[in-house]
Amino acid sequence: MKQNIYDNPEFFTEYSAMQRSQAGLDGAGEWPALRAMLPDLANRRVLDLGCGFGWHCRYAAEQHAEAVVGVDLSQNMLARARQLTNDSRITYRRAAIEEVDFPEESFHVVLSSLVFHYVQNVEHVCQRIYRWLIPGGSFVLSVEHPIFTARAEQDWWYDARGNRCHWPVDHYQQEGMRHTAWLVDDVIKYHRTVATYLNMLLVAGFSITQVCEPTPPETMLQEQPEFRHEGRRPMFFLVSVAKNTGVSCGATPCS
Amino acid sequence: MKQNIYDNPEFFTEYSAMQRSQAGLDGAGEWPALRAMLPDLANRRVLDLGCGFGWHCRYAAEQHAEAVVGVDLSQNMLARARQLTNDSRITYRRAAIEEVDFPEESFHVVLSSLVFHYVQNVEHVCQRIYRWLIPGGSFVLSVEHPIFTARAEQDWWYDARGNRCHWPVDHYQQEGMRHTAWLVDDVIKYHRTVATYLNMLLVAGFSITQVCEPTPPETMLQEQPEFRHEGRRPMFFLVSVAKNTGVSCGATPCS
Repeated sequence: MKQNIYDNPEFFTEYSAMQRSQAGLDGAGEWPALRAMLPDLANRRVLDLGCGFGWHCRYAAEQHAEAVVGVDLSQNMLARARQLTNDSRITYRRAAIEEVDFPEESFHVVLSSLVFHYVQNVEHVCQRIYRWLIPGGSFVLSVEHPIFTARAEQDWWYDARGNRCHWPVDHYQQEGMRHTAWLVDDVIKYHRTVATYLNMLLVAGFSITQVCEPTPPETMLQEQPEFRHEGRRPMFFLVSVAKNTGVSCGATPCS
Repeated sequence: MKQNIYDNPEFFTEYSAMQRSQAGLDGAGEWPALRAMLPDLANRRVLDLGCGFGWHCRYAAEQHAEAVVGVDLSQNMLARARQLTNDSRITYRRAAIEEVDFPEESFHVVLSSLVFHYVQNVEHVCQRIYRWLIPGGSFVLSVEHPIFTARAEQDWWYDARGNRCHWPVDHYQQEGMRHTAWLVDDVIKYHRTVATYLNMLLVAGFSITQVCEPTPPETMLQEQPEFRHEGRRPMFFLVSVAKNTGVSCGATPCS
């Protein structure tokens, strides 16, 4: 059984109470950046890997996607997603993203938002995503930033008076499991370096089109003072890639 | 006049005494990673932007490059480079990398090692490099890692007993000038984020082929105990990119 912390009742209750769970995409500081990296979704077949409450699926449907598939392992999340959304274009499917499969060239756009850092073997998932995309299709990925996941503590360094001194980085090159405390005592995350995330996509055959380390938008910074530290270290790492299959693509000389 | 700290006599004396200046490429922890990212240089025209003592130019000549051009602004560095190397295939040229220019498609390979973080306007330099390369040509870039350049202090966080606690990150999203103390009191460096480095190369037209955040090789770690902390945070950021000009390349659909 793959990790499924969202079906832990205590975790789910805490998660559901979070700003980003209550307010949907508007409560997610990185959403404006992620949205800007998505291609036009009108008349496209879209897959959301780790769809959670289905906010991105709803967004895709609102953008007139032809069909949207949301995949998640958590029954809790999918039940809430179905409850929140009533759109015949959206199909939800319960599966681990390491195990789900689709026919070749099923989708124009694949999205996976803040899920890969929970998954142990993502190289394999990237290779499958490449296969599921049509030539020219896009994959947009967001993860917790490697600077954020390096230490299991995933917290600021505080002085004796409780002020945030800086963001401490350690064990950066030691990739793998981190036992973190987020909402509950033990949530397992997987730390990977920036290079590993990018090379994994390149090895799968993708071309990188854009990279983003967003800060929350100005309006959010003003409304929510706890966000004022967000410029001090990147919390999210966003990458958009394309499946380019032309013979002249790749690192070999064209001429 | 562009920054030229290497012609500051005090700095130059200190720099010349460093392990990496004495031992050449073998003294540079990131060299094995950088070398692995270089394409075959035999019969290639190679440009080294910010060539310093000319170690990379010598390497290119040893690899049977057809011609090698080394550019640096420092008279001290170029004098030493000429003194160390006697190879008719190498030409040294004194110029700021922001100002030097070459005809279109002059080079097969461009290299720039640990120089861009001294340069204020590198977007423009990337665009020129793209123009100077033949189609299919490669550009290999190394810089001090954005995690390393974020704080002007560029140092570990120590406890009261002088132990290295962790690497502190702050001001990450605030790009621009850093007054750092390295060998002398004030060396100006420019901090950029990971996203900025990568997007700048993409905007110039390049395809990213590989990214690396190297740790020194095992032999170095054993011989030089001060390197044992190098796995705790990345110090260098290496990127190799290609000039692909086929019509089917890029982020637009191929089919």
